[in-house]
Amino acid sequence: MGYTIRQIADALGAQVLGDDSIVIHRPAEPAAAGPDDLALAMDPKYAVGLGQGRARAAIIWNGGDWRGLGLEAAIIVPRPRYALAGLTRLMDPGPQIAAGIHPTAQVDASAEVGVGAAIGPFVVIGAGCRIGCDARIAAHVTVAEGAELGESALLSPGVRIGPRVRIGDRFIAQPNAVVGGDGFSFVTPDKSGAERARETLGDQGQITAQSWTRIHSLGSVVIGNDVELGSNACIDAGTIRPTRIGDGTKIDNLVTVAHNVEVGRDCLFAGQVGIAGSTRIGDRVVLGGQVGVVDNIFIGDDVIAGGGTKILSNAPAGRVMLGYPGTKMDTFLDGARNIRRLPRLMEKVAELQKAVSKSERDD
Amino acid sequence: MGYTIRQIADALGAQVLGDDSIVIHRPAEPAAAGPDDLALAMDPKYAVGLGQGRARAAIIWNGGDWRGLGLEAAIIVPRPRYALAGLTRLMDPGPQIAAGIHPTAQVDASAEVGVGAAIGPFVVIGAGCRIGCDARIAAHVTVAEGAELGESALLSPGVRIGPRVRIGDRFIAQPNAVVGGDGFSFVTPDKSGAERARETLGDQGQITAQSWTRIHSLGSVVIGNDVELGSNACIDAGTIRPTRIGDGTKIDNLVTVAHNVEVGRDCLFAGQVGIAGSTRIGDRVVLGGQVGVVDNIFIGDDVIAGGGTKILSNAPAGRVMLGYPGTKMDTFLDGARNIRRLPRLMEKVAELQKAVSKSERDD
Amino acid sequence: MGYTIRQIADALGAQVLGDDSIVIHRPAEPAAAGPDDLALAMDPKYAVGLGQGRARAAIIWNGGDWRGLGLEAAIIVPRPRYALAGLTRLMDPGPQIAAGIHPTAQVDASAEVGVGAAIGPFVVIGAGCRIGCDARIAAHVTVAEGAELGESALLSPGVRIGPRVRIGDRFIAQPNAVVGGDGFSFVTPDKSGAERARETLGDQGQITAQSWTRIHSLGSVVIGNDVELGSNACIDAGTIRPTRIGDGTKIDNLVTVAHNVEVGRDCLFAGQVGIAGSTRIGDRVVLGGQVGVVDNIFIGDDVIAGGGTKILSNAPAGRVMLGYPGTKMDTFLDGARNIRRLPRLMEKVAELQKAVSKSERDD
Repeated sequence: MGYTIRQIADALGAQVLGDDSIVIHRPAEPAAAGPDDLALAMDPKYAVGLGQGRARAAIIWNGGDWRGLGLEAAIIVPRPRYALAGLTRLMDPGPQIAAGIHPTAQVDASAEVGVGAAIGPFVVIGAGCRIGCDARIAAHVTVAEGAELGESALLSPGVRIGPRVRIGDRFIAQPNAVVGGDGFSFVTPDKSGAERARETLGDQGQITAQSWTRIHSLGSVVIGNDVELGSNACIDAGTIRPTRIGDGTKIDNLVTVAHNVEVGRDCLFAGQVGIAGSTRIGDRVVLGGQVGVVDNIFIGDDVIAGGGTKILSNAPAGRVMLGYPGTKMDTFLDGARNIRRLPRLMEKVAELQKAVSKSERDD
Repeated sequence: MGYTIRQIADALGAQVLGDDSIVIHRPAEPAAAGPDDLALAMDPKYAVGLGQGRARAAIIWNGGDWRGLGLEAAIIVPRPRYALAGLTRLMDPGPQIAAGIHPTAQVDASAEVGVGAAIGPFVVIGAGCRIGCDARIAAHVTVAEGAELGESALLSPGVRIGPRVRIGDRFIAQPNAVVGGDGFSFVTPDKSGAERARETLGDQGQITAQSWTRIHSLGSVVIGNDVELGSNACIDAGTIRPTRIGDGTKIDNLVTVAHNVEVGRDCLFAGQVGIAGSTRIGDRVVLGGQVGVVDNIFIGDDVIAGGGTKILSNAPAGRVMLGYPGTKMDTFLDGARNIRRLPRLMEKVAELQKAVSKSERDD
Repeated sequence: MGYTIRQIADALGAQVLGDDSIVIHRPAEPAAAGPDDLALAMDPKYAVGLGQGRARAAIIWNGGDWRGLGLEAAIIVPRPRYALAGLTRLMDPGPQIAAGIHPTAQVDASAEVGVGAAIGPFVVIGAGCRIGCDARIAAHVTVAEGAELGESALLSPGVRIGPRVRIGDRFIAQPNAVVGGDGFSFVTPDKSGAERARETLGDQGQITAQSWTRIHSLGSVVIGNDVELGSNACIDAGTIRPTRIGDGTKIDNLVTVAHNVEVGRDCLFAGQVGIAGSTRIGDRVVLGGQVGVVDNIFIGDDVIAGGGTKILSNAPAGRVMLGYPGTKMDTFLDGARNIRRLPRLMEKVAELQKAVSKSERDD
């Protein structure tokens, strides 16, 4: 599993200084690097670490003095974080899933499995499924009846794909992620207190005991190409139309996307984001960890929301948001600062009251 | 899988206009509907969509002119959302789980499985379990020793039911949901900093290094009838007494209900709600997405909390809440508005200071 | 499964009053206790409950009059909650996993399994794994290639351990927990809007469409001794170095710990906590439910954050925090109080304006 510095540089489209024949086995942080490691020292702050470790080769910052840093070879890259993508892709051994269909797997006779697919132990694939070429499906995955997966899918252990879900190419799902569970959709025979409270912003009217009737989810889920889904994340089936996730969107651990939601392309949802039912999200929307978006609203293209933002109403394209209720980031930060200044403001007002009442008495 | 308009209307207890013999295969949104679909056009705003689609039949709003809308048949319903429940129930094919016990399933000899149960591949059912009639248990489910499930349970793939859990009739659990994991309960030999900080609202006193000792969970979980549980949701076992979920309560994806919690009947907990240990929740409580409730408090009947509310103290029956700390919805919304007005208030106070100090100088 | 009062008292290092030969089968709440139960009445408020139940023996508060309470035997403990740990440990039957390796389990020939291990049905253990002595691995668990588990691990059903993860002794994981999923790490070819918005606190500059390239996770996870992980919790693999969890740290349901995070020892993370990438957390840090911590910051030793706190910047050792943005607990509570006082403050300022403008007119 070794690579020469030349091979690595070629994979990154990068420049080499020094001995390009050194063989590298893994990347490492500078201070922890051994002689067969490639130290990652893309910033001058790592110079000290290079001195502490034993790396012979490193990716260094533009303009770094590789000889002075004690290196025998260096790779120079223009955008270090982007180079990290290429380097880690090159060196990732990937999960071990034996080629072919494991003898314990239960693949329905009517399912179609593409050439090159590797299907692990105890996998269950239902009637009428279509699994694209070169799929890697790890142990304990279930793919329910009628589901379709494009080429080169990677499903980690315990992933659940629901009935009639359709997913594009190069889908990656981390362990125990769920696509196509039933939507959370219930209705009372008469208007419920929660419906009335929403209409009136706080008054639920007279309370009457009533129970919830289930609205079934017939719409399943449609996912584009190049989508990723984190551990234990969930995307629910739509009611009538499918829940949709656009091409290139990446979704982190423990995110929930509710029924009927439509998410655009190239979005990024960090850990524990929650999107409530029927909301539409534009393209390239970036939601930080624990962001919540209420149901039935619209988030424009290129909205960015910092961690913990609770978006309670429509957000225009390009807005950068924070807070609860979610607002413009600088408005929220100004508000927090102003709250900290309230004690001083209250003192000022008390002093003014004293001064004014004194002046009135003096009149 | 077709239904005549007459069959559908009878299932909904609804009125038909026009040709009640048309056969329908699925519901659809108006603009996407084909000639064998039932368009869902319960509001006048869908009239345009009906024109774009090719539906011959629709559920329309009360008073809609079905002939003018180009339909051959129409169903009229008084509460559209409630009709959706009946319609989707009628048309949901349900998950495919073959009748009987799959040959790969591991069912302990001492377990009792009711008549009509369908148990899928790789299911594990422990010693002394009782599974009610007509249960549908999908692939990869585990039901631990001594657990009991009522009639007509539906457990989706990967659901985990812990030891001695007792669940009523018609329970539905989405994929990878967990009932009866151990509670998160730890104690230090001496009073911990966190305990002291709670008592003093912020002062943890002198810090001493100490480690956490586990309190085991002996109390399991008791769940009533007609309860639903979302994907990757968790309900922990109680310490001594069981954690309890009342009849008719519906719980969404990624919700956690901690040890010893008691939840009443007909509650609705949306995605990512968290209820901390030993808290009691009344009946018909509706908690929006990402609501948090601290431990050892009481939430009265019919409380409604909007998305993201963090409830830090007891809430009286019927309160409609929002915010962090959770408060009355209108109080929170007024507060947010007033925070936005602070810059103007600060300007006013500065002007007043100037005016008063000028007037003092003038005196 | 019975224990005499003497055996229980000895296990707790506690004092017995009365008949120490009574045999106890389980602990119970006072009002629900039968004659073979040990009532837990560690506080005078439980005296009424003891009268309602039928317990012959109880753990009572220091100084309680056991004869007057109608008991035949009593155990006195100095710290009731700590005694609960010992008592529940004694009485927990633990999960039923048959000794040895279940015939359906798939254990790679190159894996080493320690003596005394119990491995359940459908478990998959990959190439080169090392499983310590006395491990208990329940049904449907996967342990990927090269992973190492110390002694006495307890993995509940559906737990996923990723490639090359290393875990110390006495690890406990609740159902469907995931260790070592890929980190959520993506990069755009050029600087993204989110990167620019963070630098400027709100301005993402000119928007350009671009898509996300994956940074693979090569660093896996290293977990110390005596760590616990809740149901559906996730700990992601590091990019180059491992994600690290220190000895004695306890993590609750649905928590996510992102790539490269380093957590110290004896921390406590309650349900739904989220820690973003590369953040470092000190020792004995206690984070309440739904706390969020942004990426690339440092949380000092002994920080305590109440439920829902969103920590957006470094936190010094020993700080007790609450709120969004996370701040000192008393500062946040004062702020919330002051916000409620704003309407009155606004009135005062309006009155002052009136008074001052009148006085100016009068001049």
